Amino acid sequence: MTETATPTDIESAVLEACRRAKLASRALATATTTVKNDALHAMADALVAHAPRIVEANALDLERGRANDMSPGLLDRLALDADRIAKIAEALRYVATLPDPVGEIRRGSTLPNGLRLVQKSVPMGVVGMIYEARPNVTVDAAGLALKSGNAAVLRGGSAAASSNEVIVAVLQEALEGVGLPKDAVQSIDAYGREGARVLMNARGLVDVLVPRGGRSLIQAVVRESTVPAIETGEGNCHVYLDASAPLERAVPIVLNSKTHRVGVCNAAETLLVHRDAAPSLLPAVLGALHEAGVTLHVDEAAAGFAPDGVPTVAATEDDWATEYLSLDLAVRVVTDMDEAIQHIGRYSTGHTEAIVTSDIDAAQSFVARIDSAAVMVNASTRFTDGGEFGLGAEIGISTQKLHARGPMGLGELTTTTWVVYGDGHIRP
Amino acid sequence: MTETATPTDIESAVLEACRRAKLASRALATATTTVKNDALHAMADALVAHAPRIVEANALDLERGRANDMSPGLLDRLALDADRIAKIAEALRYVATLPDPVGEIRRGSTLPNGLRLVQKSVPMGVVGMIYEARPNVTVDAAGLALKSGNAAVLRGGSAAASSNEVIVAVLQEALEGVGLPKDAVQSIDAYGREGARVLMNARGLVDVLVPRGGRSLIQAVVRESTVPAIETGEGNCHVYLDASAPLERAVPIVLNSKTHRVGVCNAAETLLVHRDAAPSLLPAVLGALHEAGVTLHVDEAAAGFAPDGVPTVAATEDDWATEYLSLDLAVRVVTDMDEAIQHIGRYSTGHTEAIVTSDIDAAQSFVARIDSAAVMVNASTRFTDGGEFGLGAEIGISTQKLHARGPMGLGELTTTTWVVYGDGHIRP
Repeated sequence: MTETATPTDIESAVLEACRRAKLASRALATATTTVKNDALHAMADALVAHAPRIVEANALDLERGRANDMSPGLLDRLALDADRIAKIAEALRYVATLPDPVGEIRRGSTLPNGLRLVQKSVPMGVVGMIYEARPNVTVDAAGLALKSGNAAVLRGGSAAASSNEVIVAVLQEALEGVGLPKDAVQSIDAYGREGARVLMNARGLVDVLVPRGGRSLIQAVVRESTVPAIETGEGNCHVYLDASAPLERAVPIVLNSKTHRVGVCNAAETLLVHRDAAPSLLPAVLGALHEAGVTLHVDEAAAGFAPDGVPTVAATEDDWATEYLSLDLAVRVVTDMDEAIQHIGRYSTGHTEAIVTSDIDAAQSFVARIDSAAVMVNASTRFTDGGEFGLGAEIGISTQKLHARGPMGLGELTTTTWVVYGDGHIRP
Repeated sequence: MTETATPTDIESAVLEACRRAKLASRALATATTTVKNDALHAMADALVAHAPRIVEANALDLERGRANDMSPGLLDRLALDADRIAKIAEALRYVATLPDPVGEIRRGSTLPNGLRLVQKSVPMGVVGMIYEARPNVTVDAAGLALKSGNAAVLRGGSAAASSNEVIVAVLQEALEGVGLPKDAVQSIDAYGREGARVLMNARGLVDVLVPRGGRSLIQAVVRESTVPAIETGEGNCHVYLDASAPLERAVPIVLNSKTHRVGVCNAAETLLVHRDAAPSLLPAVLGALHEAGVTLHVDEAAAGFAPDGVPTVAATEDDWATEYLSLDLAVRVVTDMDEAIQHIGRYSTGHTEAIVTSDIDAAQSFVARIDSAAVMVNASTRFTDGGEFGLGAEIGISTQKLHARGPMGLGELTTTTWVVYGDGHIRP
């Protein structure tokens, strides 16, 4: 597709790609687990075999990135070398070891009239993935879609376009090598933003969209897409220290939730402390956070508990609503659990909230009243993770309520079909 | 709201209603099954007690309907009398007998590090229902939402506005009588189409939209809504008579699928017949359909098998794509099952397809390759139904793949939360 392609050209090209994906998805839907696992290994082998070609294409992306003043962090996420490619290939082999999510019987019964009813998991069909400048996601998404019997139409962002083009070509060759259609994995990077827009509106051809990336990307997909999308990854997570929270649990859980890894959606962004516990807990908690390099955005009450030598900044309304993804933490003293829950209800993105408490009734009440994908009782928010939950590969962490909520494994890339067996049954 | 209300007035009023619903939903989420069942009985009692008031309001709607030349069928669906109100109340009492879908443990395990993981069902929060001129749906929707712990914001169409206003007031009074917030059930009928538009875009306040009605209503919701919506009810269903289909099964299954009830989404609209079976099956099948009053829209090959005295009309491309909802059937002879599956893949709405066959491999292949919510083997398409499937109350029949597919019971109005219990766990 040249630079002069019109929106109409792009629309037909992308819709045609989706149509071919739909056709390919029919072959994937009936592929056995063995064939799919063979394909995953073939894909891994091919990536390793073609590593030099991929690295060469990646160099073009990096060059363009540097010319466009891409940040060092983004350049690092974009960069591929033989080692990284080997790791990406290993991840495909790992997906091959996971149970096949297709064909699982979810429910079933024999009805009073003798009809036998089975609800079984089946692939979605065509999964659209929209993500940013990370070529490893191209492989990851292709592998997860394949294992769950879905065709994938990938839109990876222009910054990684050269890498993605070669990677997808290599994966397609591997698919054909095991007798699967190459259209099962396609990239529409060549069609730019207009192509992404067409993908988001290819209702009927694309069965689900999974955006993976930052807030603005995900919000754009949710807003513009008529294809059902799964909202992932925004995490304004809270830790609440209840009146009965013991210091020896409070400090490590707050520290771990905030500082274990800061750029991730399950990191804590706000600390709420019951006012009865503030005098005994806050000085130590704030001191430990400061030592760990955390900037403390505190309300007036919390400021009063900062030990000497621990600087704080006054929190504004914005702080409560911000997912810092950095060594910053908002801190507020609350009157009681009610106020904590109100605060969370107002500012949370519905990802993960934690309570630290010794009181069984307080724990039960918190769990019952929090409306988020995950609630931690006396554990770090960092545990909300597909790998930690034992779900195998993680597609993302859904913060919406429809279809999937919390860490999504391969099973969340399937839907179900009811199969009904009769012997001539008609409705009386 | 007066006729001169501006879009801004309407927007604030509807968003305010949604906000109140969100607050009320927190009370419903923690209400016990006993309280919710008490509320359902109180609602039923109140409807019966206030039947005269409801009938009076309904008379106004009927009068307006007649003045607007509403069809007799629609007038009938709109009309309420004491008997119908008693039946509607009975349906609420039935919902009280169903298992509570909230608090069910879906999955759980103890992780290697000792964390205890539980995935449990929780209410969605606020359910938006958009439907047409049927006051019984107002009660039904309110009852199903309540039992599943959700607040309901109802938009029932202007034709039933007077009836709905009184019904909702009666239900709210009953809710308050058992100590639940009246905002748990609200109508936004007073805000017209603009109000519906605001509801469809109240993302963050409304958790899911369930449109119930005809194609145009559902398509409008899917197109215009940023709140996740569940697409329901479109059924261009197919019956495929395989080469081995026995006549004694083929005739009753085709007849039942087409004529048992014609205005419903699980009625058959197209019959596909394997060409090897056409000579032995089609004359009898077409004869029986004709006798039942069915107009036959046939392709050329099928026309050749119509017995003397059985009139047919030539099918056009439109016929394959039409959900007649009437005593009409499109009929096509196909070369083989591949062609049948291609036809279904092209024209089906993904609701229900049936195969009639004696061949176990043919049945298995059909089931594996059809991409619809339900597949019937030697049974009428009419069985795709929440009641028939034993799901208790039916919210609708989803023809989409996300979250719910096929008949939706109360469980489909819930989502899940992961609860994780530790004793000070942090990520190493």
